[in-house]
Amino acid sequence: MSKQEISAQDLLSVPGVRVAAVASHIRYANRLDLVLIELAQGSTVAGVFTLNAFCAAPVHIARKHLLTSGGAIRYLLVNTGNANAGTGQRGLDDALASCDYVAKHAGVPVDAVLPFSTGVIGENLPIAKIAAGVPNAFAALGEDWLNTAKGIMTTDTVPKARSVKIEIGGKPVVITGITKGAGMIKPNMATMLSYVFTDAKIEQKTLHGLLSRVVDQSFNRITVDGDTSTNDCCVLSATGHSGVDIQASDAAGFAAFEEALQSLVKELAKDIIRDAEGAKKFVTVDIQGGGNTDECLKVAYAISESPLVKTALSASDPNWGRILAAIGRAGVPELDVSKISIHLGKVCIVSNGTLAPSYSEAQGQAEMSKPEIEITVDLARGQARETVWTSDLSEEYVRINASYRS
Amino acid sequence: MSKQEISAQDLLSVPGVRVAAVASHIRYANRLDLVLIELAQGSTVAGVFTLNAFCAAPVHIARKHLLTSGGAIRYLLVNTGNANAGTGQRGLDDALASCDYVAKHAGVPVDAVLPFSTGVIGENLPIAKIAAGVPNAFAALGEDWLNTAKGIMTTDTVPKARSVKIEIGGKPVVITGITKGAGMIKPNMATMLSYVFTDAKIEQKTLHGLLSRVVDQSFNRITVDGDTSTNDCCVLSATGHSGVDIQASDAAGFAAFEEALQSLVKELAKDIIRDAEGAKKFVTVDIQGGGNTDECLKVAYAISESPLVKTALSASDPNWGRILAAIGRAGVPELDVSKISIHLGKVCIVSNGTLAPSYSEAQGQAEMSKPEIEITVDLARGQARETVWTSDLSEEYVRINASYRS
Repeated sequence: MSKQEISAQDLLSVPGVRVAAVASHIRYANRLDLVLIELAQGSTVAGVFTLNAFCAAPVHIARKHLLTSGGAIRYLLVNTGNANAGTGQRGLDDALASCDYVAKHAGVPVDAVLPFSTGVIGENLPIAKIAAGVPNAFAALGEDWLNTAKGIMTTDTVPKARSVKIEIGGKPVVITGITKGAGMIKPNMATMLSYVFTDAKIEQKTLHGLLSRVVDQSFNRITVDGDTSTNDCCVLSATGHSGVDIQASDAAGFAAFEEALQSLVKELAKDIIRDAEGAKKFVTVDIQGGGNTDECLKVAYAISESPLVKTALSASDPNWGRILAAIGRAGVPELDVSKISIHLGKVCIVSNGTLAPSYSEAQGQAEMSKPEIEITVDLARGQARETVWTSDLSEEYVRINASYRS
Repeated sequence: MSKQEISAQDLLSVPGVRVAAVASHIRYANRLDLVLIELAQGSTVAGVFTLNAFCAAPVHIARKHLLTSGGAIRYLLVNTGNANAGTGQRGLDDALASCDYVAKHAGVPVDAVLPFSTGVIGENLPIAKIAAGVPNAFAALGEDWLNTAKGIMTTDTVPKARSVKIEIGGKPVVITGITKGAGMIKPNMATMLSYVFTDAKIEQKTLHGLLSRVVDQSFNRITVDGDTSTNDCCVLSATGHSGVDIQASDAAGFAAFEEALQSLVKELAKDIIRDAEGAKKFVTVDIQGGGNTDECLKVAYAISESPLVKTALSASDPNWGRILAAIGRAGVPELDVSKISIHLGKVCIVSNGTLAPSYSEAQGQAEMSKPEIEITVDLARGQARETVWTSDLSEEYVRINASYRS
């Protein structure tokens, strides 16, 4: 599996957005751990957040500020090294205080600032270090997107960022997104942390609809370990600096924008899987022929989160019995197993619920040895189809999570 | 964690039951892999089976024979090394043929025999080896219960068996059970393979009620990896040879029997967790204060099956943030996290949804370093309480399942 290696020149600046990442010694010395993102006045902002009931203090504050400001957000402040989760009232006070440092420095209302945190759960935010770091971040504001992508990393081994430029009505429009995440990944309405920016002009309500649709088919379709974080969020912001109003453009223009946005966000989601903790395999689980979306996803997640399927993937073992057992326990009502087929890549392993006559172990072995594996299941009971991306489960995953306090 | 080490003298014979285990080279040479159990005429038998939609061929045949014979079962035939699952019509034919070998040898109807298989999924049963093994098994029928417990092992590292003798109305009654299972463990109505016998006299319908109740609080409350097997089953048989009719006895006698049976089956279930693949910890997850059973179990399984909680357990890391994140994603509606408390053993880690003021990392570390760990969560929203037993997730689990083809 090849991780997405990006360089500074791969990333396009977004007119109307300035970014900075600085080292503030929040948990480790000499590590970029505080990111500040400035949005030009008039930008629109939409966000989706974790559905974990134990959502972190900054998630509460960010949700509230999006509402009270009516989306008139000017700054995003992101720290790593500390999730400010499970920290009670003190956590809420700390998240609000960190917004206040930014607001006072910039002369904007406190609810024009959204706070985000990722890192260890249950420790208080080192608020003095953030207070000291904010002026440095303001001084560093510029266009170093690669550094900014690095600034939100935790157990990630590579920075994750993508850019695309399209033309709408003859004019260029840019979309650039950064994301982080490698473990505790089963986003539910959003991923760990992801920020996507465009210089298109998009009104608040339309922006939120776009974000919901693209997240549902990207960050909400990946899983590393089935664990939904307390701090997941995804933010989409549109500065309008390109002068291109995608709502005023024709339907084709809007569709082109949504397609470009969807494609970029999907690749960012896949970048998380490519960098999943300890992972050696990038796995696409494609469920076809379902009676509805819900049962396709039940089967997809039963396979994607089965420790036995994931260890077989890690060992490049075409152990289709484990895939079959996962399908069988997924909870699909009245499943007729005698109609099910399973493909590994283009190789048919199971047909009519049992071993395909044409299958040979050598074929399965060849498919499983690839760094990118596609498991296709046809339930043969309807037209619904859903895809989930996941990784294998290796000894390295256990090593990382038995030693890293997150 | 100390595994249950049993010796032959720990196990009590059950009047009316004879057992045998022989080596038939089903998958490996010189390994006990075929078990025959003979029940005296007049015995009653009840069984519960996996709810996996891809249930194995022997499960189909065993369910059918229990029905058509009206429970008049005389023989149980169990093979390891091959699960006869995902094998289509040929699998059903093979399972029936194996019953037929036993029926012909003993001169009983074919539906007086129940077949059971465990091992690799998706390969055809080596039926000639079973045909050759059956006469040897008949010749070996006797009272070697330890050997029989060994005969149903696969990745298990120790045989699992328990016996108890109680008095009802001044007369002795014996219960002896054997079980197997170490991975692919999240029984759903039953466990991998478990056989429990008594010389009490219990009519069929009462026996089934007893079995359902005790399995629900034992095998249906354990999880190693969340993977429900295609071959799970649990059989309870009563020979009546003690002369004690527990239904004719007073209510106290019936209650004493059910309590002894429940206790024995619960310990068998825990023996599976103690022998879980790669496990170093035996973990009790106790959820209290739930609004109902369902939400207690949702929280218990979210914790018990979280790879991040399980790797922290493996590392003896009191990483309560991961427990909290698992509770938060368990799907309990309108969960008020500010009321939740979490204890590790007797140490309160979280109170009112945040770090307990009295907690110190040293206390948590001391609890987590123990081989047996108790995680208690109080949801503070009702009176329901449920307990689930589980294990940690170690590099050894990955190693076993990346190399063993099951």
